[in-house]
Amino acid sequence: MATLSSLACPMPIAVNTHIVLGHGSGGKLSADLVRDVFLPAFGNPALNRLDDQASLQMASGRIAFSTDSFIVKPLFFPGGNIGELAIYGTVNDLAVGGAEPKYLSASFILEEGLPLKTLHQIVKSMSDAAARAGVSIVTGDTKVVEKGCGDKIFINTSGIGVIPAGLTLSASLVEPGDHILLSGPLGEHGITILSQREGLELGGELKSDTAPLHKLAQAIIKASPQARCMRDLTRGGLSSALNEIAASARVGIEINERSIPVRETVRGACELFGLDPLYVANEGKLIAIVPASESSATLAAMRLVDTGSESTDIGVITEAHAGLVTMRTALGTMRVVDMLAGDQLPRIC
Amino acid sequence: MATLSSLACPMPIAVNTHIVLGHGSGGKLSADLVRDVFLPAFGNPALNRLDDQASLQMASGRIAFSTDSFIVKPLFFPGGNIGELAIYGTVNDLAVGGAEPKYLSASFILEEGLPLKTLHQIVKSMSDAAARAGVSIVTGDTKVVEKGCGDKIFINTSGIGVIPAGLTLSASLVEPGDHILLSGPLGEHGITILSQREGLELGGELKSDTAPLHKLAQAIIKASPQARCMRDLTRGGLSSALNEIAASARVGIEINERSIPVRETVRGACELFGLDPLYVANEGKLIAIVPASESSATLAAMRLVDTGSESTDIGVITEAHAGLVTMRTALGTMRVVDMLAGDQLPRIC
Repeated sequence: MATLSSLACPMPIAVNTHIVLGHGSGGKLSADLVRDVFLPAFGNPALNRLDDQASLQMASGRIAFSTDSFIVKPLFFPGGNIGELAIYGTVNDLAVGGAEPKYLSASFILEEGLPLKTLHQIVKSMSDAAARAGVSIVTGDTKVVEKGCGDKIFINTSGIGVIPAGLTLSASLVEPGDHILLSGPLGEHGITILSQREGLELGGELKSDTAPLHKLAQAIIKASPQARCMRDLTRGGLSSALNEIAASARVGIEINERSIPVRETVRGACELFGLDPLYVANEGKLIAIVPASESSATLAAMRLVDTGSESTDIGVITEAHAGLVTMRTALGTMRVVDMLAGDQLPRIC
Repeated sequence: MATLSSLACPMPIAVNTHIVLGHGSGGKLSADLVRDVFLPAFGNPALNRLDDQASLQMASGRIAFSTDSFIVKPLFFPGGNIGELAIYGTVNDLAVGGAEPKYLSASFILEEGLPLKTLHQIVKSMSDAAARAGVSIVTGDTKVVEKGCGDKIFINTSGIGVIPAGLTLSASLVEPGDHILLSGPLGEHGITILSQREGLELGGELKSDTAPLHKLAQAIIKASPQARCMRDLTRGGLSSALNEIAASARVGIEINERSIPVRETVRGACELFGLDPLYVANEGKLIAIVPASESSATLAAMRLVDTGSESTDIGVITEAHAGLVTMRTALGTMRVVDMLAGDQLPRIC
C-alpha cells in the first residue's frame, strides 16, 4: 500500500485542506469535521444533539424506509453532482412508495486526500437538495479509507417517510387493462454521465435529469385513488422497472415506442454508443400504473407538476404473455424488452 | 486504471464465482445477487416484496434512527467480521439511545473481483447477528466499483428502533454527583484489529468484543428510572465518549484508573504499540451515567447480563473543572484525559 499510495498522491496532504485518516478516527479531527462542515450545512434540532442516533416523534401508521449508496463517477456532471443524487435518490425511493419523505441519514466514506473544498461543495449541494425535497438530515457518520482504497467519496443515504393512512401501492395490485404513465423523456442521466466519462461533447442542452419526485408522486396519488404502484427509473432504466413489475404481478406489459419520449441528443448518443434508451438510467423519472378509468386525469395532473410536464401514456397491462414486456416499435413490429443482461453503464449513481 | 487493475487482479473474473461490475447494474445480475445471496439469508415479509422501500407499521411515539458505514480491515478477525460489526454497530447506536432496535437497512459497496464465497460468508454472519439482536433487515442496496476503487467490501447499515414512552436520555441531563458505569474491559476490539494487521501473536485469548448491547441497555433503563445517558465506546474509545459528554453537559468528569478493567494481553499490547487503552476502540462496551442513588442497583443489574458481567463503577460527574475529563491514576496522581487528537487506529470499524 505504501508504494501505491506515494505513487498516487505525490503532494503532501495538509489536514486543514484535505481529508486525512484522522478525520475518521472518532477523535478531535472527526469532531472538527462535524463542527466545520456538516453542522453548518445540515444543522437542525435532531442532528445538533450529536447523539449516536436521532430521536424522532412519529404518529402511528405506516412508514417507508429505504437505503441507497452512491458511487457515481464523475462526482460533478451537468445537471447535478453526487450530493444531490444522494438526496434525491433516497427521496425518490420513498416517494414512489407513496410516502412523504421526512428524515434522511447521511454516511460518508471519504478517501484520504479528498480536498476539503470538494467535500464542502458536495455537502452544500446536499443541504440545498434536502431543502428542495422537504427533508431533514438528522443523523450521520464519516469514515476515511487510505488513498487507493476508495474513490474520493461514496455517500449512503437512508430515509424515512410517512405513508398516508389507507394507501397501499404494490406491483401485486397491477391488473390487466391498467395504464402505464411515464413522467418524461428517458436516458438523460445515463447519457450525461457516459459522455462526461468519455469526454464527449454532445450538445449544450444535455444534462442529467436529477430531480426530487415527491411532488409528482403526491399528485399521482391524489389524482388516482386506486393507483397500483410507482417506480423510479434508475439503474436498468425503464426496462428493469417494467420487467420487475411483470414478473412480480404475473401480467404482460405492452408498451408503444412512439409514446416514449427520448430527446434527440440522447437518441443520437445512444446510437453512437450502441445503447438502448429503455435500459439507460434516469434520476428524475418515474412510471405510475393506474386503472384505465383514472389514467387521463392522472396524466393531466402529472403534467401540471414541473418534474412531470412531459408525461405520456406509454402502454397497458395485458393478460396475455404474463411475465413478459413487449413493445410495438415505431415500425409497427413487436419486440420483447428483456431485462438488462450484463452491465450497460457502471457507476451511474 | 487499466494498468493498476491488471496488476492487482491477474486472474480472470468469472461471474458465477466473483463480483463483476454487472452485479451493480440494476439488471439481471443484480437480481441474481438478490435472489441467490441476500434473500436466502435475510428474507422476511417486508424485504421479500423487493420494493424500493420497506413499508413498516409503527405505533405512535418516538423512534431512534441511526446510520453507520463499516470499512474495517481485515474483514475477518478473531471474535467477528465486518458483517457482524455492521449489524451490532447500528444496533448498539440505537440501544444506547434507549431504543429497542427493530429494523435495519443494509447497503453494500462491493469491489469488482470480490469472491462470491466471501460475500456469502459475510451475509450469513449478518443474518445470524440480526437474529441474535432481534432485528430484521428490511431493505437494501448493492453497488459495485471497479477493482482498485474500493477495498473488497464496505457495508452501511441504518436502523430504526422504538423508544419507550416517557424515556429521555441525553448528555444534557447529566448532573454533578452522577456515577459513571462501564460495562467491561477496554480495548479488545482495537487491539485485535491492530495485531491482526501487524501479524502479531498476542496470546490465544485475545479477540474482539463485538457484541449486541440491546439487552444490557434495556437492563440499565429498567434498573435506573432516572438514567441520564448511555454511550457505546467505539472509535475514540472511552476518552471520546467522556469528553463529548463533559463538553455537551458542561460538567467535569473524574474517573479512577484502578476501577477501569483492562485485560493483561490488551495492556501489554498497548505498551508495545505505545497506545493508551482509554483511546482504543471497543465494539461491545458502553458507559451509563446514572444518579448516585441508582448506581449500585444498576451496576448489579448490568452484571447479570452476559455482555455486562464485568461492569464497574469508574467515576463521578463533578461541578469542578467543567468540560474536562480527569483521571486519578493508579499511582494516585491526577491527569487530564484529553480528546484523541490524531489518528490512533484507522479502519477499526
